[in-house]
Amino acid sequence: MIKACITTVNWQKGRLRILDQTLLPNQVRFISCPRVNQVHEAIRNLRVRGAPAIGVCAGWGVYLGMKHSQAKNREAFLKELTRVTSYLATSRPTAVNLFWALRRMKNAGGYERKTPFDVKKAKKILYEEARRIELEDKELCRRIGRFGQKLLRSGDTVLTHCNAGSLATAGTGTALSLIYEAKRKGKRLHVIADETRPLLQGARLTAWELMQNKIPVTLICDSMAGALMAQGKINKIVVGADRIAANGDTANKIGTYSVAVLAKHHNIPFFVAAPVSTFDFSTSDGSHIPIEERHADEIRNGFGNWTAPKKVPVHNPAFDVTPHELITAIVTDRGVFYPPFQQSLQALKQ
Amino acid sequence: MIKACITTVNWQKGRLRILDQTLLPNQVRFISCPRVNQVHEAIRNLRVRGAPAIGVCAGWGVYLGMKHSQAKNREAFLKELTRVTSYLATSRPTAVNLFWALRRMKNAGGYERKTPFDVKKAKKILYEEARRIELEDKELCRRIGRFGQKLLRSGDTVLTHCNAGSLATAGTGTALSLIYEAKRKGKRLHVIADETRPLLQGARLTAWELMQNKIPVTLICDSMAGALMAQGKINKIVVGADRIAANGDTANKIGTYSVAVLAKHHNIPFFVAAPVSTFDFSTSDGSHIPIEERHADEIRNGFGNWTAPKKVPVHNPAFDVTPHELITAIVTDRGVFYPPFQQSLQALKQ
Repeated sequence: MIKACITTVNWQKGRLRILDQTLLPNQVRFISCPRVNQVHEAIRNLRVRGAPAIGVCAGWGVYLGMKHSQAKNREAFLKELTRVTSYLATSRPTAVNLFWALRRMKNAGGYERKTPFDVKKAKKILYEEARRIELEDKELCRRIGRFGQKLLRSGDTVLTHCNAGSLATAGTGTALSLIYEAKRKGKRLHVIADETRPLLQGARLTAWELMQNKIPVTLICDSMAGALMAQGKINKIVVGADRIAANGDTANKIGTYSVAVLAKHHNIPFFVAAPVSTFDFSTSDGSHIPIEERHADEIRNGFGNWTAPKKVPVHNPAFDVTPHELITAIVTDRGVFYPPFQQSLQALKQ
Repeated sequence: MIKACITTVNWQKGRLRILDQTLLPNQVRFISCPRVNQVHEAIRNLRVRGAPAIGVCAGWGVYLGMKHSQAKNREAFLKELTRVTSYLATSRPTAVNLFWALRRMKNAGGYERKTPFDVKKAKKILYEEARRIELEDKELCRRIGRFGQKLLRSGDTVLTHCNAGSLATAGTGTALSLIYEAKRKGKRLHVIADETRPLLQGARLTAWELMQNKIPVTLICDSMAGALMAQGKINKIVVGADRIAANGDTANKIGTYSVAVLAKHHNIPFFVAAPVSTFDFSTSDGSHIPIEERHADEIRNGFGNWTAPKKVPVHNPAFDVTPHELITAIVTDRGVFYPPFQQSLQALKQ
């Protein structure tokens, strides 16, 4: 097993320990949450980010909210549980994994309806479900890494965009798990992290995370990737995904599409790494994926200074869609899939 | 003639008036320079930037340094002149136009060697040469705009990278002169300005300049251009140039190459606008253009905050080279040139 130097979220001595990512890369500080409201605050204020990591926090948050329950019967317990999950649902209303984890916790709490109610046992079930979400996430990362590392060779220089690493999961990440697993296999890799405007997840998080893990990394601006490719200085690309349509079209952090087009132009393999839960087979192709438009001041005033006229109109989409034609392979926890994706991805539906 | 709302550099009542671009877009403040050392300071501290604008400042700077000369003979005058030009040459040792302007001023001062020396007349010659550099620059911009505006149609949305506008020249700019001239012709245009990391000339300067001139502008991050092109929201691209090789390969601000590749992928015309002085016919192709590597902290700490780990290795090239195959046309003050550039550009050698 690969051990990332820094664990983003984990359960420790009855508390949820969360790395406060808002302070990175300048300070490494952990928040220790003994109560649900602290977990809520951490999610709301983006101290924890990345869909899988948020899911894990939500699971433990529910347990923390219920562990002192004095409920005398199942009805009272479930009422409390609904209150706690509804409360946590307000922490980040756009995070799909948050709701997924809350639903799992709620289902777990409603389990074993036919046996006599025992509050201690009910709480233990919640504990075990939260633990399971965390362990499953770690296992997913591991599996993605193991399948995906085969795509990387010693000596490769790999570009990644945004942060799809251990900072976004409870494990070793999605895109970056390929890097960590390849390193564990003894492969020497160099990573190019682009800064990923506007929120700079590449500069603040990926560069920092890779340095912690002693992976050689070079930081560039997003606009420099093309020039480096032209000079032959990048020979693989691996990114994460927010949502993958049935035909392989992939929504990911804004800027991913530009990288994919540049990769195509320079004949550089472009890999997407994501757990199977990222696939949305009800969406036929990328044109049906809605793109969130974020606040203009993320671009106009992203660093505590006005770097643009205060009233200049801004276009700030959070994601873009990379069409499947530009993707060389999709790495999942159930193996690596190749074009034509429309057919190959069918295996994941089963 | 087009009048930009804001004049970047101009001679006014015996002083050189310079817009302090380091304060943009937050403050509009002009520096009034009655002495050469103030011009030196303005160039050195990047209060004025853009090759043509620096050239104009250098010309007037020399005049300011000489206008109180008491030289009794040509020898003394030329000695003083050498001292002033050498001093100004230290203000920004990498700026080619600075040296070009200083050379012109020096040649002008050495003129009419056969007539009797008259310090008043010698100073007048310097004044006229500085004036000529300024007026020529204005005229170049106008001519580029007039030739280039024909490439733009009413309704176009035009992407530009970095700032090749009135803020970089004494006139209406190079790339942006096409926009201003098209507007003067009654064409309705919308401009997309990308922010141009790391130094944000697009966000700080181009967005501001276009707003001053009442041109509709939308600001995006560099990484968003591809997604906008895919959505059909950009239908022309125009950029400036720092140096153009004999075959049309063009060095310009880092990120230009990525935009050009994206344009090719989406079949969007990609125009370069630059005065003939930008061509370097002694350089056969782009591979021979040296690329300056700038300080890592421009990326790690570009906004007064550390946005990346303090010691992360950084790649920060100032320019990249766009190969001629990606360029639809080059707009100059002597007309518009089309591929094959190797042949068409021959006309400019004469």
